[in-house]
Amino acid sequence: MKTSSMTLGILVAGLSAVSIAAYAETPAGQGGKMEYGEYKDWPVLGVSHRTEKNTLRAIVGNEIAIKAARSGNTQPWPDGSIIAKVVWKQRVHPHWPSAIVPGEFSAAEAMVKDSKKYAETGGWGFGHWEGRKLVMNNKEKSAECFACHMPVKDADYVYTLPVYQ
Amino acid sequence: MKTSSMTLGILVAGLSAVSIAAYAETPAGQGGKMEYGEYKDWPVLGVSHRTEKNTLRAIVGNEIAIKAARSGNTQPWPDGSIIAKVVWKQRVHPHWPSAIVPGEFSAAEAMVKDSKKYAETGGWGFGHWEGRKLVMNNKEKSAECFACHMPVKDADYVYTLPVYQ
Repeated sequence: MKTSSMTLGILVAGLSAVSIAAYAETPAGQGGKMEYGEYKDWPVLGVSHRTEKNTLRAIVGNEIAIKAARSGNTQPWPDGSIIAKVVWKQRVHPHWPSAIVPGEFSAAEAMVKDSKKYAETGGWGFGHWEGRKLVMNNKEKSAECFACHMPVKDADYVYTLPVYQ
Repeated sequence: MKTSSMTLGILVAGLSAVSIAAYAETPAGQGGKMEYGEYKDWPVLGVSHRTEKNTLRAIVGNEIAIKAARSGNTQPWPDGSIIAKVVWKQRVHPHWPSAIVPGEFSAAEAMVKDSKKYAETGGWGFGHWEGRKLVMNNKEKSAECFACHMPVKDADYVYTLPVYQ
């Protein structure tokens, strides 16, 4: 038990340090309501292979999105949810020819839920990361993104079917 | 600034709570040296589409593995690294026919680095999760797993090519 407690303490301290480092370098959010953190540290919501684009994707979520997905609270996804889609060009694994794996990084894109701010596009704002900075699209560009999400209106405009409950 | 500090505090508290919950229900490790946490909360090391098995995978790592991957410290991966390979049967997305996405959960498998304990299999122990419990294979089964990793001996027996630095 002593070992477990020590381990736990070290782990918690470690995670806190990571969080502080990640958030200290990122904007505090838009309107003071949301945090845009380091998507590389976020847990998995899904993965996909888009065969028509020859890309592989990891779809990850911030803490609000992950909690919503695991509790089935996605009709609608709660305000503050951020979903990141990280896209890589596909390549064949050099030592396993039937495995398609990520090659060159392509983009990291975001959907940010704010039902009031983004009311015109289903409550979702669309953007992308430039390094650690999340840059939100203007209304015109967001409207383009939103149009492609209309087929999944019944899933609150989100294509990703979360892998964990 | 006040909002940011408050936000940070809440975030750190939230992450700590999640960690405590995850680790309280899991074994403290084998030999008191390693923690087997909740792989669902771990960040992404890679994704893959194994076309010959019709499966999609997310490869994630514990904190030691993630730090090693991002710092390029994987020759060898440090003791305490745990890499999880989460496997789902593939399916076509119901609203996007050219997207291959996870279907039924298949397995969550592990590679655990302990250069002394698992010296006979390249320093890696092989296992799988049964729910939240990581069950390590016996020597015979681990030797079978290890044999398939021989082609990537130069990458310390790890197929995954980490996506982030």
